[in-house]
Amino acid sequence: MALHRFDPKALSAGTPRFSHPVQVLFQDVDAAGIAFYARITTWFHDAWFAFLMDGGLDLPTDLKSGPTLAPMRHTETDYFSPVRFGDRLEAEVVEVHLEGSNLTVGFRLVRAGTDESVATGQQNHVFVSRAAFERVEAPANWRSALGL
Amino acid sequence: MALHRFDPKALSAGTPRFSHPVQVLFQDVDAAGIAFYARITTWFHDAWFAFLMDGGLDLPTDLKSGPTLAPMRHTETDYFSPVRFGDRLEAEVVEVHLEGSNLTVGFRLVRAGTDESVATGQQNHVFVSRAAFERVEAPANWRSALGL
Amino acid sequence: MALHRFDPKALSAGTPRFSHPVQVLFQDVDAAGIAFYARITTWFHDAWFAFLMDGGLDLPTDLKSGPTLAPMRHTETDYFSPVRFGDRLEAEVVEVHLEGSNLTVGFRLVRAGTDESVATGQQNHVFVSRAAFERVEAPANWRSALGL
Amino acid sequence: MALHRFDPKALSAGTPRFSHPVQVLFQDVDAAGIAFYARITTWFHDAWFAFLMDGGLDLPTDLKSGPTLAPMRHTETDYFSPVRFGDRLEAEVVEVHLEGSNLTVGFRLVRAGTDESVATGQQNHVFVSRAAFERVEAPANWRSALGL
Repeated sequence: MALHRFDPKALSAGTPRFSHPVQVLFQDVDAAGIAFYARITTWFHDAWFAFLMDGGLDLPTDLKSGPTLAPMRHTETDYFSPVRFGDRLEAEVVEVHLEGSNLTVGFRLVRAGTDESVATGQQNHVFVSRAAFERVEAPANWRSALGL
Repeated sequence: MALHRFDPKALSAGTPRFSHPVQVLFQDVDAAGIAFYARITTWFHDAWFAFLMDGGLDLPTDLKSGPTLAPMRHTETDYFSPVRFGDRLEAEVVEVHLEGSNLTVGFRLVRAGTDESVATGQQNHVFVSRAAFERVEAPANWRSALGL
Repeated sequence: MALHRFDPKALSAGTPRFSHPVQVLFQDVDAAGIAFYARITTWFHDAWFAFLMDGGLDLPTDLKSGPTLAPMRHTETDYFSPVRFGDRLEAEVVEVHLEGSNLTVGFRLVRAGTDESVATGQQNHVFVSRAAFERVEAPANWRSALGL
Repeated sequence: MALHRFDPKALSAGTPRFSHPVQVLFQDVDAAGIAFYARITTWFHDAWFAFLMDGGLDLPTDLKSGPTLAPMRHTETDYFSPVRFGDRLEAEVVEVHLEGSNLTVGFRLVRAGTDESVATGQQNHVFVSRAAFERVEAPANWRSALGL
């Protein structure tokens, strides 16, 4: 099945469903003096897990013994503007798209307290059973955490 | 200008132009017991810089004072199979596509000594002048490092 | 000059001057399933910078152009108890010891809302002039941020 | 039992038993433009695991199911000189001190191909049984990997 993709411009202009504060740390920058690009990708994942836990999913337990897993198939990030040590940002969940066992989540990274998007991201997950690693529907506790 | 994208299947089956050895470290894994997904994205960037330096580009100097910069606009990664602590891999540069000031680089990650691709990646860069941050053609030292 | 060292037991039982919240992330663990030991060392540094900024030191600016630098000479960490994905902790500044140009800072890491110390840490810095890299007294803006 | 400590000067001047190549990566630096201090601490741990695996210890398996664990009690690092993006280094195991269940390992970090030490480090581990988490003697496969 083809990947569902969000338009980065639409993510940039989207309405946040969840905001996760990020402060660019001393060690997040690279030798070009700006936040290393994979750090930004990671902040979206941090926001993703904070969003799920905020929605009531007990991820540490679910990862260990839940009947369903949600491995990542694909991720992508678009970079609009560099960020630097000390910058205060918000990594926001903007879109959640579920189609059978395929889940796509869209994010934007904005300067805190503004609507200025410095990056967008998306993650494609697929729900599989832990036992057989076969595609399954999204389980109830995940649907609930996702607000679906 | 629309992003140039490679087909992950084509990257998987591609012929490596450059191979960068990767060993999955103790601290590369996450709480699911497999290499954290952004680590894989980072290994492609490590291979990218090793490829450029192997091609004669003095990146530490170029980043500090070269007249041209090559910021990243977009990156994406496709994950096929998990990797674990101790696994020996090769992060390989498979494709380089240059069109004016737009550079796209394609990668695959294989188990060392095999053709089994566990992930693919791509990075879209744009060449800009350091002085005006305006689009420019790829400079000669970069073209040479890229084998173009 | 010999390093000033705090007794880890005294740090564990100390009174916090500043608390920095830490949540153990999915990717903070290692292949043994607990937070990688250098992550704990890093959380103390994160608390250190948060403490200085909370005390009014504009670190991003000071690092770029301040007349005085405070490079690290030594650091050490004592580990009492493992922490895991999802654990909520506080990295706390417990002691600040200044003697001429030598600064030693002591930390403890506790489970949030408790007095249970899971690790302690210390950092030895030396104040030097940016121009000559010669030892100098702690500057006024640092003394103020340190509450001295 | 008191921690065994090596003198950093002695580690600096020591004879390497094992050398692990390190190249300072683009993303290893911090906002001060030098390798982030905890990266150096981590390179010693990388050298430690490479040394053990080179000595025949199958760490991925041993961590999962070996009867003995070797958690870290304490680590410390002394920093002599900054390192920067592109620098080529060697993280070297210099000393191994075993006393009952207490193991102390000493390291130095030198510029590749030179004897110029830029940092030293030490790690204190204790051998414990997996079943009861009680102190035990170093097991045979570890002693063999340590060359003892």
